[in-house]
Amino acid sequence: MSELRHDTIQKRWVIIAAERGKRSTDFDRPKTIVSREAQCPFCPGNEALTPPEITALRPGGGPPDSPGWTVRVIPNRFPALGVETRDLARSAEGIYDRMNGVGAHEVIIEGPEHDGMMADYSVEKLTEVFKIYRSRLTELMRDPRLRYVLIFKNHGEAAGASLAHPHSQVIAMPVTPRTVAIELRSAREHYILKERCLICDIIRQERVSGSRMVYDDAGFVAFAPYASRFPFELFVAPRSHSSNFGAATDGDLENLGRCMKEIMTRLKRALHDPPFNFVIHTSPNANASPVRPGYWMTLDYDYHWHLEIIPRLTKLAGFEWGTGFYINPTSPESAAEYLRKVPVNGDRS
Amino acid sequence: MSELRHDTIQKRWVIIAAERGKRSTDFDRPKTIVSREAQCPFCPGNEALTPPEITALRPGGGPPDSPGWTVRVIPNRFPALGVETRDLARSAEGIYDRMNGVGAHEVIIEGPEHDGMMADYSVEKLTEVFKIYRSRLTELMRDPRLRYVLIFKNHGEAAGASLAHPHSQVIAMPVTPRTVAIELRSAREHYILKERCLICDIIRQERVSGSRMVYDDAGFVAFAPYASRFPFELFVAPRSHSSNFGAATDGDLENLGRCMKEIMTRLKRALHDPPFNFVIHTSPNANASPVRPGYWMTLDYDYHWHLEIIPRLTKLAGFEWGTGFYINPTSPESAAEYLRKVPVNGDRS
Repeated sequence: MSELRHDTIQKRWVIIAAERGKRSTDFDRPKTIVSREAQCPFCPGNEALTPPEITALRPGGGPPDSPGWTVRVIPNRFPALGVETRDLARSAEGIYDRMNGVGAHEVIIEGPEHDGMMADYSVEKLTEVFKIYRSRLTELMRDPRLRYVLIFKNHGEAAGASLAHPHSQVIAMPVTPRTVAIELRSAREHYILKERCLICDIIRQERVSGSRMVYDDAGFVAFAPYASRFPFELFVAPRSHSSNFGAATDGDLENLGRCMKEIMTRLKRALHDPPFNFVIHTSPNANASPVRPGYWMTLDYDYHWHLEIIPRLTKLAGFEWGTGFYINPTSPESAAEYLRKVPVNGDRS
Repeated sequence: MSELRHDTIQKRWVIIAAERGKRSTDFDRPKTIVSREAQCPFCPGNEALTPPEITALRPGGGPPDSPGWTVRVIPNRFPALGVETRDLARSAEGIYDRMNGVGAHEVIIEGPEHDGMMADYSVEKLTEVFKIYRSRLTELMRDPRLRYVLIFKNHGEAAGASLAHPHSQVIAMPVTPRTVAIELRSAREHYILKERCLICDIIRQERVSGSRMVYDDAGFVAFAPYASRFPFELFVAPRSHSSNFGAATDGDLENLGRCMKEIMTRLKRALHDPPFNFVIHTSPNANASPVRPGYWMTLDYDYHWHLEIIPRLTKLAGFEWGTGFYINPTSPESAAEYLRKVPVNGDRS
């Protein structure tokens, strides 16, 4: 079983996932991505190659683990965290801390087409995928052991995708991620000082400036963040304040679908289908049993859910590892300008 | 000129380096590494292709920027930070913070051989390189604007090296890196509680356990950290307490050379010359002019310099971006065991 180990110096948890068990010989040759439908465990007809499905959308009906689905959710075959153990079992190992790897690790197969690509989905299809995200988030948050549910997507081998068939992932974990904890703390401190949401303030300033804005309608904004770590990084957020992605309405998710359709198309055309990651940042599980109260808990008024898209065009190197800072060779203003100029939907500006 | 921008949500600085200016078309094709000596700006005879040297070791004498050197230090042609401006010029941009990109960015060309490799250097050659590291650190810390001096190496394209000729880099910056600040804080809190150095305590526990130890002699230890983020990550530290790499004696650097020779050889043989980064973590500049006192300043008794080696065998993906945590498929115990079994120097255990 996997375990969570705490880095005493860096105050960060690491999942040691023995099931995913790589031996040193596995590192000799580059991983190959399965490309033929016959071998792809995510293609229709190959349902028996995956663990039994958790849920699926089958518009025409049909039994579980049979073809005919439009979206299919399965447990990850090599889970980073698992639900077998009921006990979080925090313990010390001398100066170190550990706990059992309790959690969940699911794969959302976004559609039956092996060569599908998110940028080419219809707005309706994107909305369908986001509704599945919301339902998995809501479902997993019923478990009080799970403090945070992370939803993310890896596209392309350079972004860590090991299978080409389009899919997203869900990892539910018993601790609040450090990245989110820092955001919760910044948002709380800003709220205490100003009685306003930090991210609402940022959105207001970006809309006034416009120089980093890529998409702006009544529902959502997408902009290159002021301190972008990477070329063409984008920050996508609902304009109306909301801390919890799980509380998004169907209308919100349709708006998100429209926004993502446009910006994924712009990224694909501008950068020739770049490898990318995206991650949803949302509030921690309000139903979790707290071990201790702290910044990991949020109050609805001070956090604001959002989605970060990171095209993987540059490589991390010693500077980034040594500092936690980043060197970005492309200013967010020029990245945003370039993306705005990409023609989409007859908009040939 | 480059500028430093502060991420208001993540509390992290990003260097927007316009000089390194990539346009979107630069991201279309993979970067190629210069491999022929005739074109390599780091090869002897091509000194005119680099900016004028800062310093060099020429055992047989000779003028600057001429062949005959064994180590050569030059300014980076595309510096992330520069010394042109005297003024740090912190300022606000609405809700955001910025400052001028004051600092230094140097390249240490480790030797004249284009195909040289650190694992194949003699102990004496390694020691010579580490002495140059020490002298650059000491020299740059005379500038009170520079709060931190980072020394690192990228080896292999997957680790971010853009030139194959072996080299290390030095970046001096006006802020303490977030990664180091977290370590300083952990070390300070541990000291306040225990009146002992955190890293001394960790070294003691690792030496007793032995399960993660790869190298252990009177001068240095190298072990796979308990919460290793990556397969075969290694933590190298002097056994005697010292916060500042710049204060290492010649004897210390000879001991470090002996340790690095052995572990670089083990890594190279076990993993077939893997791409890697290494980074020296040392105390911030005690001569810097503080804007405000804080954890970024260290007292000699609570920090402990060390070197982190990260083989780049796995890819970062959405999970890592979304959490700041890591999933490691190889336990540090099995990585260390594997490395210990690699035969070196007639040790055929």
